[in-house]
Amino acid sequence: MTKHFQHDLDNLRRDTLALASSVEEAIYGAIQALQARNIALAQQVISGDDAIDSLENQVGNECLKILALHQPVASDLRMIATALMINTDLERMGDLAVAICERAIVLVGGPTIEVPIKLQRMTDSTTNMVRQALDSFSHLDVRLAERVCQLDDEVDRYNAEIIQELVETMRLKPELIEPALSLFSATRHLERIADHATNIAENVIYLVDGEIVRHRHNLIEKRCS
Amino acid sequence: MTKHFQHDLDNLRRDTLALASSVEEAIYGAIQALQARNIALAQQVISGDDAIDSLENQVGNECLKILALHQPVASDLRMIATALMINTDLERMGDLAVAICERAIVLVGGPTIEVPIKLQRMTDSTTNMVRQALDSFSHLDVRLAERVCQLDDEVDRYNAEIIQELVETMRLKPELIEPALSLFSATRHLERIADHATNIAENVIYLVDGEIVRHRHNLIEKRCS
Repeated sequence: MTKHFQHDLDNLRRDTLALASSVEEAIYGAIQALQARNIALAQQVISGDDAIDSLENQVGNECLKILALHQPVASDLRMIATALMINTDLERMGDLAVAICERAIVLVGGPTIEVPIKLQRMTDSTTNMVRQALDSFSHLDVRLAERVCQLDDEVDRYNAEIIQELVETMRLKPELIEPALSLFSATRHLERIADHATNIAENVIYLVDGEIVRHRHNLIEKRCS
Repeated sequence: MTKHFQHDLDNLRRDTLALASSVEEAIYGAIQALQARNIALAQQVISGDDAIDSLENQVGNECLKILALHQPVASDLRMIATALMINTDLERMGDLAVAICERAIVLVGGPTIEVPIKLQRMTDSTTNMVRQALDSFSHLDVRLAERVCQLDDEVDRYNAEIIQELVETMRLKPELIEPALSLFSATRHLERIADHATNIAENVIYLVDGEIVRHRHNLIEKRCS
């Protein structure tokens, strides 16, 4: 590997991690805005999405530049393809954080509804997944990537429990149906963020092992057990 | 361009269109299962997703193979990067069709709820978007890609109207809150399928013009007006 290629790869890894860190912050901010009925914070996260999008474009262009300049093959080629896919997942997580903020703003305009306490725990598990998925990419750590898949089950459990709680609220207090629907959407957005973290972990396993584990949930379960 | 390269590109285009056609069929099947409370059809779409996933893996591998063997640059490189991204969007649409089927199966287990009539129109607009987005890729037709962006507004309008209808149902018939939530989720899944079609159209504009229009909604609106 030439020095120039190594340098471009290092930059790519650094920018990917910077993107991940902005996305993680956006997710935390979005949930905080939702819980605290804080419109200013929600708007801050929404306007911060432009920077996330620019960074995504930059990382995408870096990948194309590396492909064109260094024409990598084998595991180096897989590394760039993985970085491209991780980049897309991160950008979508940013969009989902924006979607949560939009729900937060709608919530402020309506009657007060209690935000399920488990949403904070679900958020902690989700941002944990995002961080560990990126760590697994950064250190090419397959074991860590496999742990991320396991964490997704925890997020799914919180998701189901929160939705059950919201259904109860709608049933007992029909005047809260609309705000409960906003919380329902926000919860689903968070669950999808966790799914994107799982995608990243699966891509890391593919990168290291050359084995496509996406869509092979039996295999993942086996590997993760 | 060598004959071998051209041959690989033709195969890639053909397989991408085959994937798109399977995905379109899955979307129609999912909505039909939802409307007709047809568990068998829902299960058929769900089990058909394995074939979609295999095709996605195959197209992804073809892209990597072309990058490794032919080391394309400039517009050819953009074409492969675009095919990779379109591939991901199509696979996610397939997952969303599965998610709609899961809602269809849950619905059959609960009390009967009327499926909003506009859901069929929203489905027609959405599959129209998918078809036109892929046509725009196939013929590198930027004007058609721009029309896809406009169609997304129509889908968003149907989405808002259907959700309003479901909120009314929940309010008037609290015993229908859970099935209405299933329809709410299914509608949101369909709306996200349309968003993926928009992503594809934006990628085609990027491919042809070398201009990244993702995230630049003002630009898209300008271009589409």
